[in-house]
Amino acid sequence: MMAYRLDQIAQGIGAVLEGDGELLVEGMAPLEDAGPRQLAYAQSADLRDEVVGCAAAGVIVGRDFPLLDDHNLLRVADAKAGFVRAMEMFVPDRAQPGIHPSAVIAADVEIGEGVGIGPCAVIEAGARIGSGSQIRAGAYIGAGVWVGSACDIGVNAVLLDGIRLGDCCILHPGVVIGADGYGFHWMDDHHHKIPQLGGVVIEDDVEIGANSCIDRATLGETRIGRGSKFDNLVQVGHNNRIGQHVLLVSQVGIAGSSELGNGVVAGGQVGIADHLKIGDGVQIGAQGGVIGDLAAGGKVWGTPARPIARVLREQAAAGRLPEVLKVIRRQERELQALRDRMAALETRDSP
Amino acid sequence: MMAYRLDQIAQGIGAVLEGDGELLVEGMAPLEDAGPRQLAYAQSADLRDEVVGCAAAGVIVGRDFPLLDDHNLLRVADAKAGFVRAMEMFVPDRAQPGIHPSAVIAADVEIGEGVGIGPCAVIEAGARIGSGSQIRAGAYIGAGVWVGSACDIGVNAVLLDGIRLGDCCILHPGVVIGADGYGFHWMDDHHHKIPQLGGVVIEDDVEIGANSCIDRATLGETRIGRGSKFDNLVQVGHNNRIGQHVLLVSQVGIAGSSELGNGVVAGGQVGIADHLKIGDGVQIGAQGGVIGDLAAGGKVWGTPARPIARVLREQAAAGRLPEVLKVIRRQERELQALRDRMAALETRDSP
Amino acid sequence: MMAYRLDQIAQGIGAVLEGDGELLVEGMAPLEDAGPRQLAYAQSADLRDEVVGCAAAGVIVGRDFPLLDDHNLLRVADAKAGFVRAMEMFVPDRAQPGIHPSAVIAADVEIGEGVGIGPCAVIEAGARIGSGSQIRAGAYIGAGVWVGSACDIGVNAVLLDGIRLGDCCILHPGVVIGADGYGFHWMDDHHHKIPQLGGVVIEDDVEIGANSCIDRATLGETRIGRGSKFDNLVQVGHNNRIGQHVLLVSQVGIAGSSELGNGVVAGGQVGIADHLKIGDGVQIGAQGGVIGDLAAGGKVWGTPARPIARVLREQAAAGRLPEVLKVIRRQERELQALRDRMAALETRDSP
Repeated sequence: MMAYRLDQIAQGIGAVLEGDGELLVEGMAPLEDAGPRQLAYAQSADLRDEVVGCAAAGVIVGRDFPLLDDHNLLRVADAKAGFVRAMEMFVPDRAQPGIHPSAVIAADVEIGEGVGIGPCAVIEAGARIGSGSQIRAGAYIGAGVWVGSACDIGVNAVLLDGIRLGDCCILHPGVVIGADGYGFHWMDDHHHKIPQLGGVVIEDDVEIGANSCIDRATLGETRIGRGSKFDNLVQVGHNNRIGQHVLLVSQVGIAGSSELGNGVVAGGQVGIADHLKIGDGVQIGAQGGVIGDLAAGGKVWGTPARPIARVLREQAAAGRLPEVLKVIRRQERELQALRDRMAALETRDSP
Repeated sequence: MMAYRLDQIAQGIGAVLEGDGELLVEGMAPLEDAGPRQLAYAQSADLRDEVVGCAAAGVIVGRDFPLLDDHNLLRVADAKAGFVRAMEMFVPDRAQPGIHPSAVIAADVEIGEGVGIGPCAVIEAGARIGSGSQIRAGAYIGAGVWVGSACDIGVNAVLLDGIRLGDCCILHPGVVIGADGYGFHWMDDHHHKIPQLGGVVIEDDVEIGANSCIDRATLGETRIGRGSKFDNLVQVGHNNRIGQHVLLVSQVGIAGSSELGNGVVAGGQVGIADHLKIGDGVQIGAQGGVIGDLAAGGKVWGTPARPIARVLREQAAAGRLPEVLKVIRRQERELQALRDRMAALETRDSP
Repeated sequence: MMAYRLDQIAQGIGAVLEGDGELLVEGMAPLEDAGPRQLAYAQSADLRDEVVGCAAAGVIVGRDFPLLDDHNLLRVADAKAGFVRAMEMFVPDRAQPGIHPSAVIAADVEIGEGVGIGPCAVIEAGARIGSGSQIRAGAYIGAGVWVGSACDIGVNAVLLDGIRLGDCCILHPGVVIGADGYGFHWMDDHHHKIPQLGGVVIEDDVEIGANSCIDRATLGETRIGRGSKFDNLVQVGHNNRIGQHVLLVSQVGIAGSSELGNGVVAGGQVGIADHLKIGDGVQIGAQGGVIGDLAAGGKVWGTPARPIARVLREQAAAGRLPEVLKVIRRQERELQALRDRMAALETRDSP
């Protein structure tokens, strides 16, 4: 079990310590659960009472948090960032350097320093594995694949031939990169397969969730920009170009040949059709279905995806629809009554 | 091929046999397909004619089913339960006890009696495998994982470090338990990974479908309650707490930090947002999108999910919308006509 | 690197060559990207200017494309088909005949000529692998499985016991065929598992995308018709019968016991409920949710899925709903005003 003194943690995360630096901390916990050997954090000064009532050995707080005499505070500029830094101190070292004897590695594979290759992993001819990268048990690295440095290729993950992966990428278990894009042409009497000869390029610092799939391009490349993070069970079809720092939440599907700008965020189960341009910073609400281009900065929801304020107005209106139908039926009757009265007046008054 | 006499099946499922107990049965089939060496079942007495016309060696029926002289009936309290029990008699024994020599097992792993470990399976240090459990080919059991008794861990399934799995659990092929939850904090110029230090606890008698994913908690645990059953390609994010006997149909996604009560049922492709409380027994129709808490016993559908009766009313109203627009346009014209007639009357009659 | 002279390509794809047959071509590229050693294609005569401006060594064109003196054209009846045929000439040979020593193969497995079995693949007793098929690294072929000829079973794909697979099928990495269908019956105090004793039959020329799942039947079979093509992360539940040449785009889910006719097309993320009949040639728009039978040739969208023309009308009407509410409120006021004026007239004129 890892353990640190509070002053070690303060130093590790760049905090000013207010209190007893000798106290030992063995882990992290939410404010409401933390025990006397755990570290917590308070995201805002509003949580003063919770901090006062909490049993944690210490609490990471921001600059604006009040002074507390009887609690150990670790004060930083951004409380959540401090929390993240502290958690990093407790991450177990999962590196397993060395090559397991059951791994199957082609003769010409280039393997950097400190690389770990797990049991039953397979690395085909012409592949290169950058220094410090981990290829976990049962993972498959196809012919000519380049894996950068400090990557973590999860258990049973699959990188097919020719994929390019930058540095510091994390692929969780069961990820499949480089399967054939979905392309067919009706010829004679059947859907004829269109060969998928392109590749996939994944830039630095990309993380891809378990059992997600990223297909190779028909020609050219499918590209995932630097710093993008995908959740589990995400589908990225062939020839998509995903920008930098894009977030795709679980079960998102992107058809093919679309461009997502930098900083796009797609909520869970979003679908994006093919050949679209989604501008920088677009945010798409969960389950939304995008079937047209979207200008930068837009916030959309629904199927077809449209500005979220409009969707909310339409939903509110739709909720009143059954009542509206009643009003309209009543208005029909009222109109008829008025017409009758009008006719009576007109008849009576006609010369 | 397995075969039983009808009297053996009657005894096995606790049925009263009406007919010839010597007949041999080699399998089960639907009523309409069953041949003379197969067993069928009739869920209700309404199926009397189908049973009379059916060629099955015997038919499992309920207490209220009429007597039939010329058919072999196996009479039980719950016909479907009897059918299930009979099917269980035909399940092939898929246990493969013993440890395949190609499996890679750390020195200190505790392995119970009768455990089977398939080819190329990997079991890391500190893991414990309960008696009678099957670890199928290519499966991965991470460091410190506890697998209960009588579990079946499917081919290429992955349990990452520290996962706790109860007794009698079934994980189908490609399942990934314990991948990092999806959590990032924008720091400086990038989405910074929030370490995921928590675990996953799966209680007894849980079944998880092929290629489904259950993420580890940020802190604390993700928990799946006893007797819950998930279909294929389901996503359960970090820190969710799923109750007992919950059914999640294929491709359901649950974001994170939500609580599902006991007996919740979510239809295929349902999405549930984060930090929600879904009460006991809630039923969510397929493709529904839940973005708010739901009280126990509710039946909801749609996105955002709302009471199903209301959804159906709204859908019916929406279907009449194009017609409503026409009515409103006509009413506009009628109002104008009335105003014109009114103005004429007012003008004519004014003193 | 593969390279062909233009006349070799013309011969290979059955084109009439207009230009210099000696030029060497090393690959394919889109018209706008192609360099002087690449081959492109123009799908229609409208692209004349693009072809004139393009640097490709040669361009595949259709019969109706104009003559161009200074470009090398390969003229065929169907330009896209010609393009596909040319791409096929550049597909690298990924066959790896022979059996890797780390593969684990039961003694009685029947293996055809030219079969390749990769590292750590597992083939259980009674399986048969047809000639020329590739079983990639880490793939699992269960007991009694039949794999036809010229199949490609992807890395870490899983075929469980008794599955039948025709000729020329492609299963991408991580596919799971034959996991238990999702069936439970509430007995006493728990969801009791209904044994899944049926099989899966996949006919010739079927392609199934990465991490897709096809479940075995409860009794009888789940069947996928000849020439059907599924994208990644597709779910096909137990006892479905999928026709020939069916296209299921990524993340489609089909519940169970439904029948899809020949030539059905389901867009990404479509859901189809259980026990339905979907007629030949039905097209279902992305994210649609089908909860009723659909007659042959229908084009539907939305949840519940309904004729696409109607969906578009309803969407347009829904978009005008907020405005409609305003109109109705105004009409209310106008009706009241008319009633007031009417009452005034009636009063004034009353004798």
